[in-house]
Amino acid sequence: MIEAETSETVPFYDTDCGGVVSNIAYLRYIEKARTLLFAGLGMPASDMMESGLFPAVVRTEIDYRAAARLADEIRVTARITAVDKVRVTCSFELTARSEEGEPRPVASALQVVALVQLPEGRPRRIPAEWFKLIE
Amino acid sequence: MIEAETSETVPFYDTDCGGVVSNIAYLRYIEKARTLLFAGLGMPASDMMESGLFPAVVRTEIDYRAAARLADEIRVTARITAVDKVRVTCSFELTARSEEGEPRPVASALQVVALVQLPEGRPRRIPAEWFKLIE
Amino acid sequence: MIEAETSETVPFYDTDCGGVVSNIAYLRYIEKARTLLFAGLGMPASDMMESGLFPAVVRTEIDYRAAARLADEIRVTARITAVDKVRVTCSFELTARSEEGEPRPVASALQVVALVQLPEGRPRRIPAEWFKLIE
Amino acid sequence: MIEAETSETVPFYDTDCGGVVSNIAYLRYIEKARTLLFAGLGMPASDMMESGLFPAVVRTEIDYRAAARLADEIRVTARITAVDKVRVTCSFELTARSEEGEPRPVASALQVVALVQLPEGRPRRIPAEWFKLIE
Repeated sequence: MIEAETSETVPFYDTDCGGVVSNIAYLRYIEKARTLLFAGLGMPASDMMESGLFPAVVRTEIDYRAAARLADEIRVTARITAVDKVRVTCSFELTARSEEGEPRPVASALQVVALVQLPEGRPRRIPAEWFKLIE
Repeated sequence: MIEAETSETVPFYDTDCGGVVSNIAYLRYIEKARTLLFAGLGMPASDMMESGLFPAVVRTEIDYRAAARLADEIRVTARITAVDKVRVTCSFELTARSEEGEPRPVASALQVVALVQLPEGRPRRIPAEWFKLIE
Repeated sequence: MIEAETSETVPFYDTDCGGVVSNIAYLRYIEKARTLLFAGLGMPASDMMESGLFPAVVRTEIDYRAAARLADEIRVTARITAVDKVRVTCSFELTARSEEGEPRPVASALQVVALVQLPEGRPRRIPAEWFKLIE
Repeated sequence: MIEAETSETVPFYDTDCGGVVSNIAYLRYIEKARTLLFAGLGMPASDMMESGLFPAVVRTEIDYRAAARLADEIRVTARITAVDKVRVTCSFELTARSEEGEPRPVASALQVVALVQLPEGRPRRIPAEWFKLIE
């Protein structure tokens, strides 16, 4: 199974005037984990500008379970959970940990990703070897 | 039925190196429409810092249907589609229009929102009058 | 003199846990005003993906004078203040107005912009007619 | 001398349709380094929500020297360069490194920071011991 894990500390600009992390900021954390996940599949971001082959998010679902705060450590665990001819489904579990505390679940998400060949924007088939990696 | 509509022009900072609008930027467009929707329900953002009563997104679903590009006009139509004791469900339809073109659907989304009383973070019941507005 | 003015309402995602607009968000307001300013010079953003000719910020100076808050109306007045062979200097004045209040100055900024031809990234001379527009 | 260094990999959402890192994204990299710098001065972000004492940027200057790209490693070196009764001046040097390349300078910046006591927003004197740390 392909997995990736990222970790970062909540910066000021990811919080909002409610005193907690903005719902939008979680999508940034998820994007970093997803990029690492695709690197593990042999498609690192550092090759994409040359290859023109980009992962495109076609659907996101995210459930916010608890608030995260300034300076919390956010940890994202990303997994590939399904593959079909033209789409990869990724799941994400996010925890937050304040300096004294234990990690607590703050959000769960799922993204469906297609591969798109730029500049034309043509969809590309998912590589056959990815099916094996998932099993 | 409560509805709100917003419109804005895609700025540079909402695009990414794939040449299209970033999947994350759509959540910013949606947040502006949702804020307007809640103002229509009698809960304007300008009162929130004083009242401490904030809408908190507890779930987002978004389907990306087509790419939007720099300088496109993004129009968001937001509607309240369901209300229960502690949650409001909002739906969003997003279109993009380039200078010469017709508006084309680019994304559909749904958000479930709870009301939270800060600083304690206690959930609050949805006001009774909102149920009538939805019918 | 070439001028542009933009106006927008502070959304949640531009505020931070200090309860005020994030210093970074002002650069987004400025970018929108600058884009409008360049459209007034005959270089609309809607042409840039085709022409490959982009304005690139080479220097920013910004002074933050007072705090802006959620739901304030931010107004940006942008002007071209100098032009030389390869650079345009723009100045920006930002005010914020809460629902009951008068507009109050919140920030002043200056940006130096060069024209860059993509994909090569070659600098381009400032069009001769822009010199006349500035006088 | 107080110094801090941060490093991160350019994500999709920090690039724009010109194919390079957005001028605004650099301010995010700088904010993370500045937060680490203040932690080194004994003012960690994890204490701020409780103490209500926040660093507020009152001026930013940034020179963009070269383009950074998707997946580059951005390294920020931050230093305190001056202190007076009510302000701290920080300088930042940013380099970018692609997978095969050497680090190359991409931006230099300076920020002037004041200490602000929330919720009143009163300016606070710079702690006496910070003057010694800078010498």
